[in-house]
Amino acid sequence: MNDILEKTLLLDFYGTLLTDKQREMYELKINDDLSLAEIAEEYNITRQGVSDTIKTCEKTLLDYESKLNLVARYKSLSNIIDKLDNALESKESNEELLKEVRKELENIRKWNNGI
Amino acid sequence: MNDILEKTLLLDFYGTLLTDKQREMYELKINDDLSLAEIAEEYNITRQGVSDTIKTCEKTLLDYESKLNLVARYKSLSNIIDKLDNALESKESNEELLKEVRKELENIRKWNNGI
Repeated sequence: MNDILEKTLLLDFYGTLLTDKQREMYELKINDDLSLAEIAEEYNITRQGVSDTIKTCEKTLLDYESKLNLVARYKSLSNIIDKLDNALESKESNEELLKEVRKELENIRKWNNGI
Repeated sequence: MNDILEKTLLLDFYGTLLTDKQREMYELKINDDLSLAEIAEEYNITRQGVSDTIKTCEKTLLDYESKLNLVARYKSLSNIIDKLDNALESKESNEELLKEVRKELENIRKWNNGI
């Protein structure tokens, strides 16, 4: 997974835990790909000020991920969903398919219960 | 859903965001059902001190839920899983069953993508 996608996921999951201003500035950097200088101009602060805020945002987001693992959990559920999708599109007999569906459903239940 | 179950879920999802001492005391109250006086004795602090900590924990946990909705999302995925379980145990024809499985799988995908 590339760096920008990873950062976008972190922002998606924990963005509400940043302050409004932090989130706005971080979105301009990550989602809109503005430079530090462009963001500095927008907020009428120094480039260093923007750089510090961006670093604080990244530290905060990574800190929450280390405690809640929402991005890692998102990816693991995506894998289960893909497996189920593949099973449903395969040419397996209905019996084998239903066995697979039951297995993956059990995996989703475990996932949801944090097991 | 009863109050204790709700509090247990909040603790399960956001417990790592409390301090170690907060989490320990809150677990004694919620999971082990100790009284404020019993916890106070254990930590050698006042009953009021324990009461304040418990209230701080509850406020912190509810604040995170208002921003991240993990408990609400847990419940909604549980509902989808139950629907899939019921479909798999029903006497429906395989064709109807697979249609239902595909529908609920799509719901799980949307859930995972936060839609």
